[in-house]
Amino acid sequence: MLLSREFATHGLGLVEITAEVASAVAEAKVQEGLCTLFIQHTSASLTIQENADPSARRDLGRWLERLVPPNDPDFTHTEEGPDDMPSHIKAALTSTTLGIPIQQGRLALGTWQGIFLWEHRSSPKRRRLLIHIGS
Amino acid sequence: MLLSREFATHGLGLVEITAEVASAVAEAKVQEGLCTLFIQHTSASLTIQENADPSARRDLGRWLERLVPPNDPDFTHTEEGPDDMPSHIKAALTSTTLGIPIQQGRLALGTWQGIFLWEHRSSPKRRRLLIHIGS
Amino acid sequence: MLLSREFATHGLGLVEITAEVASAVAEAKVQEGLCTLFIQHTSASLTIQENADPSARRDLGRWLERLVPPNDPDFTHTEEGPDDMPSHIKAALTSTTLGIPIQQGRLALGTWQGIFLWEHRSSPKRRRLLIHIGS
Repeated sequence: MLLSREFATHGLGLVEITAEVASAVAEAKVQEGLCTLFIQHTSASLTIQENADPSARRDLGRWLERLVPPNDPDFTHTEEGPDDMPSHIKAALTSTTLGIPIQQGRLALGTWQGIFLWEHRSSPKRRRLLIHIGS
Repeated sequence: MLLSREFATHGLGLVEITAEVASAVAEAKVQEGLCTLFIQHTSASLTIQENADPSARRDLGRWLERLVPPNDPDFTHTEEGPDDMPSHIKAALTSTTLGIPIQQGRLALGTWQGIFLWEHRSSPKRRRLLIHIGS
Repeated sequence: MLLSREFATHGLGLVEITAEVASAVAEAKVQEGLCTLFIQHTSASLTIQENADPSARRDLGRWLERLVPPNDPDFTHTEEGPDDMPSHIKAALTSTTLGIPIQQGRLALGTWQGIFLWEHRSSPKRRRLLIHIGS
């Protein structure tokens, strides 16, 4: 089963999408299997992170922004703006795809795990996620 | 088929889990398929690395510790100690999930590849790994 | 269905393999499913990146080379040369495995996404990729 979902982002930062993915899994009515997520972009990515304290996500986002700052004098791919090349690097360092087991009809996430879409461009975007559910 | 395994870690560093995953694959009796690993934590992760020379793992671990040191003055998520926020960042930069093909009933790893659980907290922990085996 | 493909690389940098993977998917005649890629090496990796402008790949490669330079005085795993340890670190920071959905018989890549094999050794190599196609 293959589902498609669109998400609005609000510039740099992580957007939690756990509820939307869990709802797709419920819709598929698969008791045991594998849910594979795939984001159809190269300037946004996916990650599984702490879902309890928002400060962990904020620190994570800021740390990566510091590692890959805009306006790096070595960048030549700059036509789309100073946040374009950093967005591709951040996507390469994180995940375009994730595989999460399904157990008793639900995503088998750990207690503190949430699924996040990570926007690496400065301006709000609409991002498309594919959700494959297999047994 | 979905299996669950628990591993003890010993503070920062990589623990080889190839034999345990290979044994789960043998138990599943699948000739050709896909083995997906998922770690249910956000302060430990997975990686496939050189299995021959332990110095490669040591250098890898130390390099990442240098890239993401504790006590970063920009961190605000510090309640659980100085190794908490670095552990989340290291997990985001490595892998929460891995997909390994099964060929002739065995994990189709390359000659020098081993599967490792990467502990990012300073103290020993018990870590849960889910193993999904599909065809 | 499990296929195996070999690719020649030309030293440090990204080699596009989208056409070869698309051809394997066409061969499998699966209308809807999941294509999982697995590279059988620890000194080369996989990534999904911008396929339009080669300058994005060049900048990405150079940025990672600057982050993980050879001849780091902390490296002890140096027998195979100065590019050996950096190659393992770069592989750990990127991807050994990718899962891409199949939709209407084709890889469901986004408009600007291409699949790349990333060589992290200085000299040309032959690299083996496994392609698992499931439903």
